[in-house]
Amino acid sequence: MGEWLVGDILERSVLLYGDRPAVIDGEVRRNYAETSGRIRSLAAGLLSLGIQPSQHIGILAGNSHRYFETYFAAHYAGTPLAPLNIRLSGPELEFIINDGDLRALLVGPEYLELLDSFRDRLPKLEHVILLADNAPEGMAAYEELVKGSEPLAEPARDWREEDMINLCYTGGTTGLPKGVMLSQRNVVANAQHSQMTFSFEESDVWLHAAPMFHLADAWACYSVTAAGGAHAFVPGFAPEPFLEIVQDAGVTATILVPTMINFVVNHPKVPDFELSSLRALLFGASPMPTERILAAREIFGPILAQAYGMTETAPLLTAQRLEWLDYDTPEGIERLASCGRQVQGVAVRVVDEDGGPVPPGGTGEVVARGPNVMLGYWNRPEETAAVLKDGWMHTGDVARIDDQGFIYIVDRSKDMIVSGGENVYTTETEGALYEHAAVLEAAVFGIPDDQWGEAVHAAVVLHEGLSATETDLIKHCRALIAGYKCPKSVEFHDTPLPKSGAGKILKTALRASWWEGYERGVN
Amino acid sequence: MGEWLVGDILERSVLLYGDRPAVIDGEVRRNYAETSGRIRSLAAGLLSLGIQPSQHIGILAGNSHRYFETYFAAHYAGTPLAPLNIRLSGPELEFIINDGDLRALLVGPEYLELLDSFRDRLPKLEHVILLADNAPEGMAAYEELVKGSEPLAEPARDWREEDMINLCYTGGTTGLPKGVMLSQRNVVANAQHSQMTFSFEESDVWLHAAPMFHLADAWACYSVTAAGGAHAFVPGFAPEPFLEIVQDAGVTATILVPTMINFVVNHPKVPDFELSSLRALLFGASPMPTERILAAREIFGPILAQAYGMTETAPLLTAQRLEWLDYDTPEGIERLASCGRQVQGVAVRVVDEDGGPVPPGGTGEVVARGPNVMLGYWNRPEETAAVLKDGWMHTGDVARIDDQGFIYIVDRSKDMIVSGGENVYTTETEGALYEHAAVLEAAVFGIPDDQWGEAVHAAVVLHEGLSATETDLIKHCRALIAGYKCPKSVEFHDTPLPKSGAGKILKTALRASWWEGYERGVN
Repeated sequence: MGEWLVGDILERSVLLYGDRPAVIDGEVRRNYAETSGRIRSLAAGLLSLGIQPSQHIGILAGNSHRYFETYFAAHYAGTPLAPLNIRLSGPELEFIINDGDLRALLVGPEYLELLDSFRDRLPKLEHVILLADNAPEGMAAYEELVKGSEPLAEPARDWREEDMINLCYTGGTTGLPKGVMLSQRNVVANAQHSQMTFSFEESDVWLHAAPMFHLADAWACYSVTAAGGAHAFVPGFAPEPFLEIVQDAGVTATILVPTMINFVVNHPKVPDFELSSLRALLFGASPMPTERILAAREIFGPILAQAYGMTETAPLLTAQRLEWLDYDTPEGIERLASCGRQVQGVAVRVVDEDGGPVPPGGTGEVVARGPNVMLGYWNRPEETAAVLKDGWMHTGDVARIDDQGFIYIVDRSKDMIVSGGENVYTTETEGALYEHAAVLEAAVFGIPDDQWGEAVHAAVVLHEGLSATETDLIKHCRALIAGYKCPKSVEFHDTPLPKSGAGKILKTALRASWWEGYERGVN
Repeated sequence: MGEWLVGDILERSVLLYGDRPAVIDGEVRRNYAETSGRIRSLAAGLLSLGIQPSQHIGILAGNSHRYFETYFAAHYAGTPLAPLNIRLSGPELEFIINDGDLRALLVGPEYLELLDSFRDRLPKLEHVILLADNAPEGMAAYEELVKGSEPLAEPARDWREEDMINLCYTGGTTGLPKGVMLSQRNVVANAQHSQMTFSFEESDVWLHAAPMFHLADAWACYSVTAAGGAHAFVPGFAPEPFLEIVQDAGVTATILVPTMINFVVNHPKVPDFELSSLRALLFGASPMPTERILAAREIFGPILAQAYGMTETAPLLTAQRLEWLDYDTPEGIERLASCGRQVQGVAVRVVDEDGGPVPPGGTGEVVARGPNVMLGYWNRPEETAAVLKDGWMHTGDVARIDDQGFIYIVDRSKDMIVSGGENVYTTETEGALYEHAAVLEAAVFGIPDDQWGEAVHAAVVLHEGLSATETDLIKHCRALIAGYKCPKSVEFHDTPLPKSGAGKILKTALRASWWEGYERGVN
């Protein structure tokens, strides 16, 4: 009797808000009743191709109303959905599509050429659906599936809340991307936690401006739908289209990464746009210096609120609420750097090495427990066991907590760089560097960057007698991994890199000089 | 990793809102940090008496901050709590205490004499805790337990979310009260559903004016605490104390039954009180004629919202939201009679006899599915199976649903009378009547009553040659069951009562003439 699933979210909104706008995407404007019909027809269409319930499907596309529909169609078709990172290279996508057992891929026209470059190395992929009105030989067209299929009355699968509905690949700390298995309950729990936190209403219009393959934005597909609000889209973020759609669609809420906010704040045309519909501008994924928050407040008003989470927690863990923000006292200004406090429904603690909570003011690892915590990593029992232990999800993020429960992320994680909102796992970049014949030792870490928050930087020791330039090494990496994961700069050392007693390279020591006088997240 | 329990609600509020008011009860004002300490000490004190985790405890008392504390202490002591109906007779309480395996009972001083009258017939009850500073020989004092015990750092039991934490007895349709088993997940889910519905904030002050033994009010212990709001109390409802505390404590929200609202609206001193802090006046449990709603709006403003639920669903199923209310159009006025629409997190359908949803405008039985639906009835597998079937909780309530999902309860249930906010199960009253030697046939049903909403009425056929007056029969019932369950009036028939083909008495036919020109819930 305990089930409340993704389909229930949509069905309630069709019942309560059927004639209210669901999607606003250029010329496309449809209400919830129409959108639900399309979703159910798409699901029927997918099955008509021969896809079986419980088989995995993927999507590789920019933001659009079709991306939104696909998240819900996965429920009705009974097919867990893997949303793919559009910034990955061909070999990375190939790995994920094979690793994740994807049988079908919905693909935006702009990624078709990339897909073609490795399609013959995808033995399990049987179907390609082009997000378009029609499609060339050998693939199906999204709109033809929608138009040619009777809407499914019920999901094609007898879902249980613990069943995986999303398979979200994240960069792997061992160098390989790994699939985060999110259950129906995970994403529905987060939809409720985020509603309690951000108080969405049927009058809200959410803008999907950050990429919808990433849960940092995709959670709003569920949460805003649950409240009966509308969804607007920009295919890929750029400041002027962002400003235009905020004005034209009457956008009330969105989430951006700090880099995007900076782009908008510094855009010369900002004063030309009417932005007063915005009531909440959430941001996350990387630190935003306080003076940048204050500058953004000048443009948008006191509506900026930092949130913190991760794919493994579907994603929300902590958030600022607007009514907690105080721009008028030194303590309030200092607290702008906080990512807020644990949201309703999730226990979040900052713990010491023994697993006990640190005292107020203390620093430790962020751990979390709640119905939003993932099932685990797909086919990676060891990596799952490394983070899901003693009943808690161990985030690897280091934070300080104050006496009122406000959390300040002081290190995103020991290994991760956040550059322009994208997570870069340094071990993956190091792996690429190590494949170069001349590289003896490599340590990758983030250094301050005004535009991207952090830039990927490498410290390298070369084999005696061999040589490589900075340009050589960057070029070498680009052939192996996505551009954003490659070093932007390289420093060469003549002596071995500093190491711990256990022989581990001490990145903290290497990084220190770069961050001198620059307190992350505060300055 | 999926657990989020009653203790997590309290602990989050201590972390985030530790110095904010938690309870306001006469002279007693304590913040969340202090209240949490008392709760954990009470739990330790209960265990120090010899009560074991997983054993059941009960409480029989009027509303107070101690009642509130007890709901949470049950979590830390690990002891499921049965809140007992203070309006029951001694034999009824005796049945419940024995049926529910209660090992300990917290009791308000005003119920001690009643308890003494049957205490020697409670073989399993080992401990009595008096809600007072000290207690006579043979029982423990609440405040001594609190003061004499170190607060428990952790719950004494390794709770799982499917474990029962509340055992709530409701009148039994077979004549015996039955215990509704509510799990940790049930009550926590409802706390979240109600937060999303009523948007509680840390600035809220909830008034526990309706009896806290009933989930119709008790749910707010969890929900308002989750938001960091405060709790105020009136020991038993009366209009003037209600008005005083709304004014003095700055009450922002509460739930009443229509009878209570009527008492307040008609109270001559209303204009003397400042009631502007109230932002939400919820009501439920029985129909409230529209003109009464409009009269109440004159006093309180447009803050009345009807809610609908039942103990078996922990309890919320549907509710009006204030922003949906419209007092300015005929359609809006008509919709005031609706108990609202399904809340977030619960699927609510109105179904026909085949279990399919009725079309808009249709009438059928209300069924519900969600994580708030009870585990079942304690030791009553057959009665459980009769209501939990095909994945849905069958409420037995008959309702109409409109094209926007608004639900109108047209018959609380085929058998139940709601009189002054109390459920009266007519089969129980009939059972008492049938114990009278002269009674041949009896049918009990509700008739319109301006003060109580409905009054309990009986249609009776006597055995030939035997006699009994209306007064005889009422007096006979009073010796067996609680006063509010007894008929207020009796009609005598000379011929057999009308029956269906299957031989079941047709109450609808009997009731019809009483309700002529009186559309329940509308006029």
